[in-house]
Amino acid sequence: MSRKLITVIPGLQEDHRRRIAEAAARHGLEALFFARDEDAAAELADAEIVFSQSVYPAARAPRLRWQCTPSAGVDHFCRPGLFLSKDAVLTSSSGAYGVTIAEHIVMVTLEMLRRQQDYNRIVAARVWRRDLPIRSIHGCRAALLGTGDIGRETARRLRGFAPACIIGVNRTGHAAGEDFDRTAAVDGLDAVLPETDLLVISLPGTAQTRQLLDRRRLSLLPDGAMIVNVGRGVVIEQAALEEELRAGRLLAALDVFEEEPIPADSPLWDCPNLLITPHVAGNMTLPWTQERILELFLENLENYCAGRPLQRVADLERGY
Amino acid sequence: MSRKLITVIPGLQEDHRRRIAEAAARHGLEALFFARDEDAAAELADAEIVFSQSVYPAARAPRLRWQCTPSAGVDHFCRPGLFLSKDAVLTSSSGAYGVTIAEHIVMVTLEMLRRQQDYNRIVAARVWRRDLPIRSIHGCRAALLGTGDIGRETARRLRGFAPACIIGVNRTGHAAGEDFDRTAAVDGLDAVLPETDLLVISLPGTAQTRQLLDRRRLSLLPDGAMIVNVGRGVVIEQAALEEELRAGRLLAALDVFEEEPIPADSPLWDCPNLLITPHVAGNMTLPWTQERILELFLENLENYCAGRPLQRVADLERGY
Repeated sequence: MSRKLITVIPGLQEDHRRRIAEAAARHGLEALFFARDEDAAAELADAEIVFSQSVYPAARAPRLRWQCTPSAGVDHFCRPGLFLSKDAVLTSSSGAYGVTIAEHIVMVTLEMLRRQQDYNRIVAARVWRRDLPIRSIHGCRAALLGTGDIGRETARRLRGFAPACIIGVNRTGHAAGEDFDRTAAVDGLDAVLPETDLLVISLPGTAQTRQLLDRRRLSLLPDGAMIVNVGRGVVIEQAALEEELRAGRLLAALDVFEEEPIPADSPLWDCPNLLITPHVAGNMTLPWTQERILELFLENLENYCAGRPLQRVADLERGY
Repeated sequence: MSRKLITVIPGLQEDHRRRIAEAAARHGLEALFFARDEDAAAELADAEIVFSQSVYPAARAPRLRWQCTPSAGVDHFCRPGLFLSKDAVLTSSSGAYGVTIAEHIVMVTLEMLRRQQDYNRIVAARVWRRDLPIRSIHGCRAALLGTGDIGRETARRLRGFAPACIIGVNRTGHAAGEDFDRTAAVDGLDAVLPETDLLVISLPGTAQTRQLLDRRRLSLLPDGAMIVNVGRGVVIEQAALEEELRAGRLLAALDVFEEEPIPADSPLWDCPNLLITPHVAGNMTLPWTQERILELFLENLENYCAGRPLQRVADLERGY
């Protein structure tokens, strides 16, 4: 019986496939590739390693030792007893998304500040109107809720725009790097919010982050403040935010939602002062991200085969 | 007969008016404010200083010594004999627009790279589609045609996104600051274009820049290259660019055009791969820009009254 490495990633490039197969072969592993979970079913009985975003293999591979997900988030794996194999370890691809998500954050922030949705409508109507008041990142007070890869890459990019300050907020208030003016612990969030013009949320969806931005905390933000959420929808009390947006008190660019896809009949689709993107800030359609995911996986494959500790091991109780 | 300072700036804020009046009074000048050119007509006979974007006062003020325009561009003043007074000097507000225009440039660049116009259409149709291939500033080869205030502020912001390189192109190839990897003279533009993924144009409209990006030079850009024009429309051979956009070979974000407003029946409105904004990259609707324009004017007013040389004097033959 061969030791199997099963990869179930739709749209994997030929070059990526070849590099995985070569690395596997060097270590006596048989590499198998599938586009869909169901196609891999027959091979899961003796899968040792799985490279897939899906929980399907986890629940069906009794000999699984390691699953790597190409996502940064692992919330859908956090169900007790999900893994059939008691020895299984899950690693994430955290670190592959900072570049693309930071670009998304800067883009939507500028779109909100510069009234780009309004100007898009003006241009679509073939009107020549130029008088909408706009705002700037220059002098803006930014708070980044989450100071991991995404927060750091975002801070680095925002810095060049000369904001008034960049505050990082994380679990303990630990230092987050030179591009932050200071950091605060999430326990001190209530003191940060009233001084925040731009709130960027890159938190995972966990029991601790759920509804962190509830109605009360949203009300602490000053008038005209902007929220960018690229983490998980459950971090915000969505109905309360929608009220603030409809009242014209806050602006938001949401890439993640309480329910995805947004239901067709949701009032959110027509909500004013809201820029919706369909969970694309950090998807895998950017070649740089694809390449980075593969590099991280291959690095960990070497760790695994050498008996070294795996990097980016997910804590399924903590949720990330 | 009093010495008059005439300000014709629509929407001037009360605070700005007060600061101008106070500075004028300190120097024995009478400050008069008008919302429209015509309203100022009766006072132009003995106007010594005019603060206005319009050519109307210039052609009607025989004793004019100095006109300051709140714009960065002065092309509409470059007509022989426009100024009735032979002693008149024109100064621009070059330096007040770099911050806002650089933000526009980064925004539209990211919108092109990340297919934001397509995602806007997807979301407007209430569809949940996430699979469009996107690109990144990371690793992108940027060339900034024009290395003045706008080019420098743009380079500073792009730097944080880790592009492959930032090349400045200016008249002589002189150094343009630490955020440029190197500079080239405009004579060497043909060698720069084939290595450029993002071409940002912030040139004034002059005899030398007219049609600089003609059909031949546009063809030197690699497939998929992006053009952002925030300078003047005449710098690009617009019909040739439109062909490249319709062929899907290039992408463009144009804020300026050969004819403004774009005529209602222009095919440009429907051109694919084109992001149109109605000359808003550097307009005066950003408070920071308004403040900076006023600061620059008041600095020069002190220079004028002290007999010191004025800053930002326009060369009406050169065109900027």
